Amino acid sequence: MTDKTDEPDGPVLYHLDETCSLDDVEEGRAYQGYVNGVVDYGVFVSLNDSISGLVHESNLASPLEIGDDVKVRVEEIRDDGNLSLTPVHMHDYDEVYVGEHDGEEEEPPRTPIGELVEDDDVTVEAEILSVRQTGGPTIFTLADGTGTVDCAAFVGAGERAYPEADEGDAVRVVGEVETREGDLQLEADELEVLEGEDAQEVRDRLSAALDERAEPPELEPIVDSDRLRALYPRLREVARGIRRAVMKDRPVVVRHHADADGMASGVAVERAVFSLFDEAVDDTEAKYHKFNRMPSRAPFYEMEDVTRDLNYALKDVERHGHPKPVVLMLDNGSTEDDADAYRTLDAYDIPVYVVDHHSPDDEIEPLVEEHVNPYLEGGDYSLTSGMLCVELARLIEPSVEEDLLHVPAVAGKGDHSEAPEMEAYLELAREQGYDEEHIDDIADALDYESYQLKYDDGRHIINHILDVEENDSHDELVPHLKSLAEEAFGRQMDAARAHVDEVSLPNGATLCTLDVENFTHKFTFPGPGKTTGRVHDGKVEEHDGGVVTVGYGPDFCVIRAEGVGINIPDIVDELQEEMVGAGVHGGGHLVVGSLKFVQGRREDVLEKLYTKIAEAPLVDEHKEEVGEEPT
Amino acid sequence: MTDKTDEPDGPVLYHLDETCSLDDVEEGRAYQGYVNGVVDYGVFVSLNDSISGLVHESNLASPLEIGDDVKVRVEEIRDDGNLSLTPVHMHDYDEVYVGEHDGEEEEPPRTPIGELVEDDDVTVEAEILSVRQTGGPTIFTLADGTGTVDCAAFVGAGERAYPEADEGDAVRVVGEVETREGDLQLEADELEVLEGEDAQEVRDRLSAALDERAEPPELEPIVDSDRLRALYPRLREVARGIRRAVMKDRPVVVRHHADADGMASGVAVERAVFSLFDEAVDDTEAKYHKFNRMPSRAPFYEMEDVTRDLNYALKDVERHGHPKPVVLMLDNGSTEDDADAYRTLDAYDIPVYVVDHHSPDDEIEPLVEEHVNPYLEGGDYSLTSGMLCVELARLIEPSVEEDLLHVPAVAGKGDHSEAPEMEAYLELAREQGYDEEHIDDIADALDYESYQLKYDDGRHIINHILDVEENDSHDELVPHLKSLAEEAFGRQMDAARAHVDEVSLPNGATLCTLDVENFTHKFTFPGPGKTTGRVHDGKVEEHDGGVVTVGYGPDFCVIRAEGVGINIPDIVDELQEEMVGAGVHGGGHLVVGSLKFVQGRREDVLEKLYTKIAEAPLVDEHKEEVGEEPT
Amino acid sequence: MTDKTDEPDGPVLYHLDETCSLDDVEEGRAYQGYVNGVVDYGVFVSLNDSISGLVHESNLASPLEIGDDVKVRVEEIRDDGNLSLTPVHMHDYDEVYVGEHDGEEEEPPRTPIGELVEDDDVTVEAEILSVRQTGGPTIFTLADGTGTVDCAAFVGAGERAYPEADEGDAVRVVGEVETREGDLQLEADELEVLEGEDAQEVRDRLSAALDERAEPPELEPIVDSDRLRALYPRLREVARGIRRAVMKDRPVVVRHHADADGMASGVAVERAVFSLFDEAVDDTEAKYHKFNRMPSRAPFYEMEDVTRDLNYALKDVERHGHPKPVVLMLDNGSTEDDADAYRTLDAYDIPVYVVDHHSPDDEIEPLVEEHVNPYLEGGDYSLTSGMLCVELARLIEPSVEEDLLHVPAVAGKGDHSEAPEMEAYLELAREQGYDEEHIDDIADALDYESYQLKYDDGRHIINHILDVEENDSHDELVPHLKSLAEEAFGRQMDAARAHVDEVSLPNGATLCTLDVENFTHKFTFPGPGKTTGRVHDGKVEEHDGGVVTVGYGPDFCVIRAEGVGINIPDIVDELQEEMVGAGVHGGGHLVVGSLKFVQGRREDVLEKLYTKIAEAPLVDEHKEEVGEEPT
Repeated sequence: MTDKTDEPDGPVLYHLDETCSLDDVEEGRAYQGYVNGVVDYGVFVSLNDSISGLVHESNLASPLEIGDDVKVRVEEIRDDGNLSLTPVHMHDYDEVYVGEHDGEEEEPPRTPIGELVEDDDVTVEAEILSVRQTGGPTIFTLADGTGTVDCAAFVGAGERAYPEADEGDAVRVVGEVETREGDLQLEADELEVLEGEDAQEVRDRLSAALDERAEPPELEPIVDSDRLRALYPRLREVARGIRRAVMKDRPVVVRHHADADGMASGVAVERAVFSLFDEAVDDTEAKYHKFNRMPSRAPFYEMEDVTRDLNYALKDVERHGHPKPVVLMLDNGSTEDDADAYRTLDAYDIPVYVVDHHSPDDEIEPLVEEHVNPYLEGGDYSLTSGMLCVELARLIEPSVEEDLLHVPAVAGKGDHSEAPEMEAYLELAREQGYDEEHIDDIADALDYESYQLKYDDGRHIINHILDVEENDSHDELVPHLKSLAEEAFGRQMDAARAHVDEVSLPNGATLCTLDVENFTHKFTFPGPGKTTGRVHDGKVEEHDGGVVTVGYGPDFCVIRAEGVGINIPDIVDELQEEMVGAGVHGGGHLVVGSLKFVQGRREDVLEKLYTKIAEAPLVDEHKEEVGEEPT
Repeated sequence: MTDKTDEPDGPVLYHLDETCSLDDVEEGRAYQGYVNGVVDYGVFVSLNDSISGLVHESNLASPLEIGDDVKVRVEEIRDDGNLSLTPVHMHDYDEVYVGEHDGEEEEPPRTPIGELVEDDDVTVEAEILSVRQTGGPTIFTLADGTGTVDCAAFVGAGERAYPEADEGDAVRVVGEVETREGDLQLEADELEVLEGEDAQEVRDRLSAALDERAEPPELEPIVDSDRLRALYPRLREVARGIRRAVMKDRPVVVRHHADADGMASGVAVERAVFSLFDEAVDDTEAKYHKFNRMPSRAPFYEMEDVTRDLNYALKDVERHGHPKPVVLMLDNGSTEDDADAYRTLDAYDIPVYVVDHHSPDDEIEPLVEEHVNPYLEGGDYSLTSGMLCVELARLIEPSVEEDLLHVPAVAGKGDHSEAPEMEAYLELAREQGYDEEHIDDIADALDYESYQLKYDDGRHIINHILDVEENDSHDELVPHLKSLAEEAFGRQMDAARAHVDEVSLPNGATLCTLDVENFTHKFTFPGPGKTTGRVHDGKVEEHDGGVVTVGYGPDFCVIRAEGVGINIPDIVDELQEEMVGAGVHGGGHLVVGSLKFVQGRREDVLEKLYTKIAEAPLVDEHKEEVGEEPT
Repeated sequence: MTDKTDEPDGPVLYHLDETCSLDDVEEGRAYQGYVNGVVDYGVFVSLNDSISGLVHESNLASPLEIGDDVKVRVEEIRDDGNLSLTPVHMHDYDEVYVGEHDGEEEEPPRTPIGELVEDDDVTVEAEILSVRQTGGPTIFTLADGTGTVDCAAFVGAGERAYPEADEGDAVRVVGEVETREGDLQLEADELEVLEGEDAQEVRDRLSAALDERAEPPELEPIVDSDRLRALYPRLREVARGIRRAVMKDRPVVVRHHADADGMASGVAVERAVFSLFDEAVDDTEAKYHKFNRMPSRAPFYEMEDVTRDLNYALKDVERHGHPKPVVLMLDNGSTEDDADAYRTLDAYDIPVYVVDHHSPDDEIEPLVEEHVNPYLEGGDYSLTSGMLCVELARLIEPSVEEDLLHVPAVAGKGDHSEAPEMEAYLELAREQGYDEEHIDDIADALDYESYQLKYDDGRHIINHILDVEENDSHDELVPHLKSLAEEAFGRQMDAARAHVDEVSLPNGATLCTLDVENFTHKFTFPGPGKTTGRVHDGKVEEHDGGVVTVGYGPDFCVIRAEGVGINIPDIVDELQEEMVGAGVHGGGHLVVGSLKFVQGRREDVLEKLYTKIAEAPLVDEHKEEVGEEPT
């Protein structure tokens, strides 16, 4: 076994692999070695596992420690086989690898992160996702498309190792794989920032691998629906974004509407992402640290909420080395009221994905990565967010499907959907053992519990109500919460009933109005929106012809119409124009919505509103979803 | 004493028990031993407590340490009784136990959890309280009635070990005892799910041991009181439940009224449970993870609160493997308003214990494990919750008594109790160095600080005010908070004084009314309840004959009566019936309580209320406790 | 090598160092030894690394374990060199050290904490800052003036080691230096509480070292200003207090006003303290555990806030062994409203430092350690807190200066300062690349974001807005937030404009009033204070002569004056006196402030207020800072 390569012209550093013997060593050549012993009179340097020699203390410029890498020249091969070595300092040299492979020059083999095994010594090439300085080592989170791994480099307690290496850099790391608190970690012996072609190659490899791994599975909707099929390209794009985020270790922040449809949406996606954590990144703690689902009290992404989300995300970036998150808006997020929040996230290059079925504003489109909304593909609100999110969940991780088959029916019931798909969803639920009444009870229980949870995701309680997680409580919990919800509605109706004023309008419709501030219980379930909705439902049953119901408080009102062709967004626009200083804003669907205004102008605003309602034509229209609660 | 069993055919490993002597040893046989000494020339190996010999260093393949298990062959029994040993490696051998039991083969002895010692190899039989999957091993929390211990079983990082073993199963675990972060932990080598008789035996043993250990001590009340004695069987039952919960590692959730009596109640129980954590389960972190005391702002267990408690408990179950908690309601919990919360907990089989002195509703009885309330045994509200809870604390852990002897007096003062026991409690406090004025100041400081703490338990501040924990601040803190409380009352009285309307009623009583919305400072201490109480106290001093004071806000009023025989719960019932849609609810004691109603009906409701008050007879009655604040 | 000292008269214990051989041992003498082997027939005791002998089991009163220290008498030096030893019990003996140092008796050398190196065996003399019992060892935090270190002493899991040693004691610890989670820790082998002179010496050394290390650097203000220079002695005293606190491991709690000036103040100090954590105590986690910066919603230290701060601090003392914190009030804290909070902290000996530019009350002076306020040295509010805090930051840690040079300009802009120093600050900012418009935008963005953050410090977002931390978002974030702020102001002005009432007063001034409850949007940015301010600014431009603007809600009003010589604090005093039961309180600066009152007295209070305004003389005065928002 000898080195058969042509000798390069310049200086050469030889590497001996483990198959080399003393026969492969030549006096005068420079070799890569490492210190394997320190004695008074010098250090022993190994050229491979079996060949070593002495560097005499008189030749050492600075102290060396066991494990240090050192380049040495072989001064003499003594008769007894001992080598006499001196340290050499080399620049601009070629490297030659000597050994079993017959002296061919070769790179050390690269191990994909997804194939790391404990205790292996490996070379990894990857992109740095984030850097975090601990009190001990510096932690680099690395990704190469096959997985992510934390890489620890230590130069001194709390001292930044490899300060030249930063987020986004392509690096080559040589080190050993160890286990830390149940997860693999790479202990770096060497970390080199790659440049030029090498770096590009790493990035291309990562990108290609991610593209491949992040590609959602090819699926058909769980119920036969062209409306769903039309949304599939958009849904696939969202699924791709979430899958890619998880594979690049980015946290996922989910904001959703705090009602049954919104909860169903959020939970479906949560189940899928958790499953992906198991499947794709094998991170057992990710569901606590890399995922955050929060109900929004307002029907849009308030500045206060986005500020909070951003604040926490940046703290995690700094303290825990998390990459910046992606944000997913569910059953919320399609309206112009969301734009300020999206622009705030944009200052941090945090991408936003929206899956919503509320009437979308054009303004949103350029601000988000992808926007899934039935209105954008010829559908309407009856295709609820929960239905869409079950499809999304399957595209994120198809194995979750079996637990979610009854969820679209719950979402639809929650939003009183009259979608053509509804019957198929109910049938699917029945096949899973949930009859329509049971589904309805689940939706009501979710609505009720969402109210009680306020800003908390209520992870397990909600899972138990939705029955998507193994539990023994669903059968008792759902009827109990349903009955609490019904009692609460009963209390509100008792208080409100005598105070609903009815007026017959010239257009033949009936206008019902209720002072919700004075004649309902406040700060309790159901709030003004749901209370007004229930009053309205009763009046619709009482009266032939159209009915419009308005529940008003000091600075807001809730509107619901049936059989009267009002257009609430248009009314808002008109009132804004006609009533300077009344501070009118709000909106919603055509016939379900709410207004806010300045309290001192309530009388004017309501009067103008009633006039516009009186001028609206009677129509024969399906009911729309219950509006949001403005308080 | 010799081994009389038939020799098995294959290789045999002998175990000598502590009753064996040198006579039981035979040359050439293999014995189970352990290293009890390490010297330069070898290791000393014991076969039991009294028999040992030397393995010479030349026979040692690898270094051994004291405590290591080692199988040895007896090469020679020397004349001086010393044994010459060599290590043996054995596979597929029979084991023979030699000793007092005459060599019968027997099961390895079972070690009670309460007797585990670090580094021991043990066999434990126990019930699984909970299972938690970490990123590393699976953790089973085990109980056998003598204690609880975490048992770690590892098959792969984050992989569920022994998936057949689940909460509630009886198991036999063979393993080694180690220390993890200060607590003992059993590292499982084998874990076997027991069935049939074996399982039943473990459960019976656990149950019997728990019954015995959970049995509260035999005590007499700290003051001589038949009324307390009558409540002892119920108090013992609660103490038994709490002791049993702690011994089975179940978290304890305490909800209590946010005033001096409620705080005193909560703290007394907290001190006892913490002491029990030390005594019974030796879990140094339990006071942070297994106990949660929370003041309730409302005078009942709101759905929002129970939802929160349940939500957190379920998250702990999932993430930290905690068993489900038990809930303890103190100075709260006896009224029908609590029933919805209890039914919600029931869906999770979470037991509830109540110690309260508010007028109880029958509806509660079947929903809770035990209900301690003086009214149920012929007593009344004057026996306050804090008095009862000091008894309860002693029954949970008697050693806490010495720190709590002055606490019943504080609780009584806080609720203006005129109980016959009060004098004895004050005398007890005096013996501890707290005179009546000091006790009164503590109660007022507690009331004030409870208001500032909102939803926080304020663990140490409250302990310092109550002086139940070593501190240097009590002497300065209490007078300071007392003076802040008095200043705050002064501010409210200044604002309110000129706006209290007085009317002489036909029955001779005086009706005082105050618009607390318009003529007191809002969102500050003291709130409407305490403010109305203070106004009332002043008016009672001014007027002979009965006085009723009503402080009203937009949708509530607070009522206090003295010398007028009103019955507030009855009034609520009547108003509910007579005033459809007014949304009246509320209650309290006979002559201290509050109403809520729909804001738009305030005038009607107050008018009817005043009429009922005017019709009530004058009586000669003791004052009742200050009512709850409705805001 | 023999012992050449004169033999003392009494009993002597000899210590052999590692250089001694058997020749140094004499029969009959007592030696310090330690157990290095346990066998059946006794224990082997070493006198140094090379000399050992047997204590026969028959001479052992109690069992000994490996590592135990034991004093032994050499009974016999056998021919084979083995020693026969017996344990001795000695009292009142002299100690003689035998070995290379020729037997001179000497104390082991003391290592300063600041010079501890991993793996060293050391003796440390220090004061105990705090004691914390973990589930494992007891942790003593030690300080000797050169640094602080955690010292772990273990006697049993969860058992208190050295119970005689408590906070404040001077101790000598012998132990080994190890690394725990990146920080050095001393593992105690021995811990001795020092008394008398020894203790005093340790304390003196600590105090002297701290005095030296805590001394702030000698600096001149960053802009030439006699007004700043006059405040330097006070600023130095605050810096000294903070530096001393950090060096003694005390947490620092910062409370500041929730506006641009307050945020700038808080951030400047935060950057300096974090830098000090790196420089002085090398504690990488301190910024998460030992520092807490919180915006206060109210313009003073509310009882609710101080209760919360105290509550958390005491929990950290108990659970994490933190010393009690120091409190730093910034852009807040000078008024009598703060006194109650300071007295509460005083019950716990928690010192308070104040840096504020609001008109100070005399009452505060004796309650705080140091009070920096321009009014106390002939200055006024135009020297804003943020300007002062940048000076303070430099005095705490001068290296932060370079990042903060533009911050005083932001603080000044935020408070509309017309200080003579302002131009120099703006020039300084320009030199750093921030022109005046940019500075103004930063101030407005800070104001806006403070509102959205509510009670959160918003650490990184705020740093990015202020541009004091490396980031890529500043350039996009600031104009975005600025535009959101402007839109929000626009919305409020649209609503308010038509409802501002103007009256010409007899003194020639114009009184503008606005019902902010009815004619502005509530619970949104800008609040009533800033909204009233903006209205006022517009009116000042419209009118010659003085303008006073009053924005009133149900129980408060905000006042701003320009060119009218009102004195709001005096007005408050007068109204309090004249209007019994109106509950008037509040204050602020002379011409910028707010009142609160009892809602039912609003009309009276406003009427009296307007009368007083009408009687005020016209003046030619600079504008004062925008007042606080009362809601």
